[in-house]
Amino acid sequence: MPRALNRQITLARRPSGIAGPDDFALIESPLPEPADGEVLVENLYLSLDAAIRSWMKADCSYFPPIAIGEPVRSTALVRVLASRHPAFKPGDHAVAYACSAWQDYSVIAGDAMFAVEESPDFPLHYHLSIFSAMGLTPYFGMLDIGQPKPGETALISAAAGAVGSLAGQIARIKGCRVVGIAGSDEKCRKLVDEMGFDAAFNYKGKNTEQLSREIAALCPNGVDIFFDNVGGEILDAALLNLAMFARIAFCGAIGDYTKNGPIPGPYNYWQILARCATVRGFLTLYYKDQFPAAIAEMKGWLDNGQLKFTEDISVGLESVIPAFAKLFTGENTGKLLVRLSDY
Amino acid sequence: MPRALNRQITLARRPSGIAGPDDFALIESPLPEPADGEVLVENLYLSLDAAIRSWMKADCSYFPPIAIGEPVRSTALVRVLASRHPAFKPGDHAVAYACSAWQDYSVIAGDAMFAVEESPDFPLHYHLSIFSAMGLTPYFGMLDIGQPKPGETALISAAAGAVGSLAGQIARIKGCRVVGIAGSDEKCRKLVDEMGFDAAFNYKGKNTEQLSREIAALCPNGVDIFFDNVGGEILDAALLNLAMFARIAFCGAIGDYTKNGPIPGPYNYWQILARCATVRGFLTLYYKDQFPAAIAEMKGWLDNGQLKFTEDISVGLESVIPAFAKLFTGENTGKLLVRLSDY
Repeated sequence: MPRALNRQITLARRPSGIAGPDDFALIESPLPEPADGEVLVENLYLSLDAAIRSWMKADCSYFPPIAIGEPVRSTALVRVLASRHPAFKPGDHAVAYACSAWQDYSVIAGDAMFAVEESPDFPLHYHLSIFSAMGLTPYFGMLDIGQPKPGETALISAAAGAVGSLAGQIARIKGCRVVGIAGSDEKCRKLVDEMGFDAAFNYKGKNTEQLSREIAALCPNGVDIFFDNVGGEILDAALLNLAMFARIAFCGAIGDYTKNGPIPGPYNYWQILARCATVRGFLTLYYKDQFPAAIAEMKGWLDNGQLKFTEDISVGLESVIPAFAKLFTGENTGKLLVRLSDY
Repeated sequence: MPRALNRQITLARRPSGIAGPDDFALIESPLPEPADGEVLVENLYLSLDAAIRSWMKADCSYFPPIAIGEPVRSTALVRVLASRHPAFKPGDHAVAYACSAWQDYSVIAGDAMFAVEESPDFPLHYHLSIFSAMGLTPYFGMLDIGQPKPGETALISAAAGAVGSLAGQIARIKGCRVVGIAGSDEKCRKLVDEMGFDAAFNYKGKNTEQLSREIAALCPNGVDIFFDNVGGEILDAALLNLAMFARIAFCGAIGDYTKNGPIPGPYNYWQILARCATVRGFLTLYYKDQFPAAIAEMKGWLDNGQLKFTEDISVGLESVIPAFAKLFTGENTGKLLVRLSDY
């Protein structure tokens, strides 16, 4: 039985830096009614992604910014409660990419949802983690943009994060030397000891020149593939160490999401020309026709132990705001999810 | 008969801004002697290219900087006077890419030269202009990186320059709508009236926002291909107007060559991700295996009038420095060459 009221976390103001409790409001509203083509859903799991922080900025460019007073937009694993869309009936499960919100119930256009089904092979919420568009981001970014070849060197920023650790492991499967950049010595140790990275270093407290020296020491033949989750000084340091014809998969710029005002691009942008390098931005949803094949290949790697993946699941709507902050302090230990209800 | 002495223009100091007479010295030296594998050549035509200015910077990254006191490195069409390399004999012609200099005679490694021969079809010095690596830069940049498709929009910066005007015309041949950016109303008029551009506008005196509005008005479906010769604010404005899956051929950043100190990358670098765009740097010499086929195709377009190309040829070593400055003030009216001697 649904609750009588819908608990919602709304955006109270535009955050500065890491979003905290004062940036949000918890309100209760009547349950919404679906219109024609829409579906009323219960949010079972929320996916906490760095991109959400960029949607909170007034000048967010690739999606409409979240309006003040609006529930915070999110990706979610949902169960259909009532449907006015022919493809969904009550009890169906689906993933709503960037069109549900931090709340108990949402009304969503049925066309915007991806139906998913329970499988004996893996838990349903994997569709929100390793087999989601997020989980497949390192797959497409590394394989389609990175084009890894045996013996090449792949450098991964935010390597201990959910996307970064998968990107590095996939490059390793393809025969690359893999070097990770992470925010603590402990995370670096785990990348090497548990995730099969060849080397890793801690970026904290280092300027561009120091970062560049670390990269040069660990990537003596230059960087053939840079999987960039971070932007900023780490990108600038990576640009100074590119091999000729390097590929940069531009996946995110988490270091910039909490900054306001004009953000200068990389000071070493010129190196893209000097090294005949390619920078390509990508949004994984554009690969959606290839999701089934990608999931099958990833599942094979998971099953044979070549790929390791961890989730960091907190419980209850009240845990959303502190869990979200962990993305930006680097405290999370795997893909961040919030469980609101069982499937 | 060679002169008794070799007149040389050397770099007297690192220029600030546009390089002027005080940045250079004219000296005379004895004729050099070729060592084993080297060739003594007479420079017949010099090619004045914006890249030379970047080699004058102490922090030039993709080539060694020109040392103070060294003759200014240049590309040249040369005639062999004496050879200690098996592939060359006296009287042969060759193009020496970025390994001759602003002087009457050079000694060059034979392996670094491209032999060329007189042809009844076009003047020999075309190998230094439209059929040189420079002339082929728009060919490979537009076709290999731009991947133009009929109905797409191509935007060209420094469109009235030798590279830019060819890039735009090639996009036009491939069925694109072509918009040029140039530095005077007169140049814009010529692009439209004489070079077949669909539209052009004058960037002078406009900030990023104004540039962006001009681009938006002339590229209502967004920019599918940006051929970037300039960098800086024009690049930033172009990034704000990219169509999804846009391609940026990063050919040069002439606006940055005369700046000192750290140069911020594009403030709108993020748009590369938001638009799933590709930025690719390239150096035309890496396509050298494809030069003969490219020259044949370009020659066909020249002959049937689809491609127009103008040269701006000054005469004598004393004209090099004022002619070089024209590249940066935008006063040249075509590919800049200096004729030192007839072939």
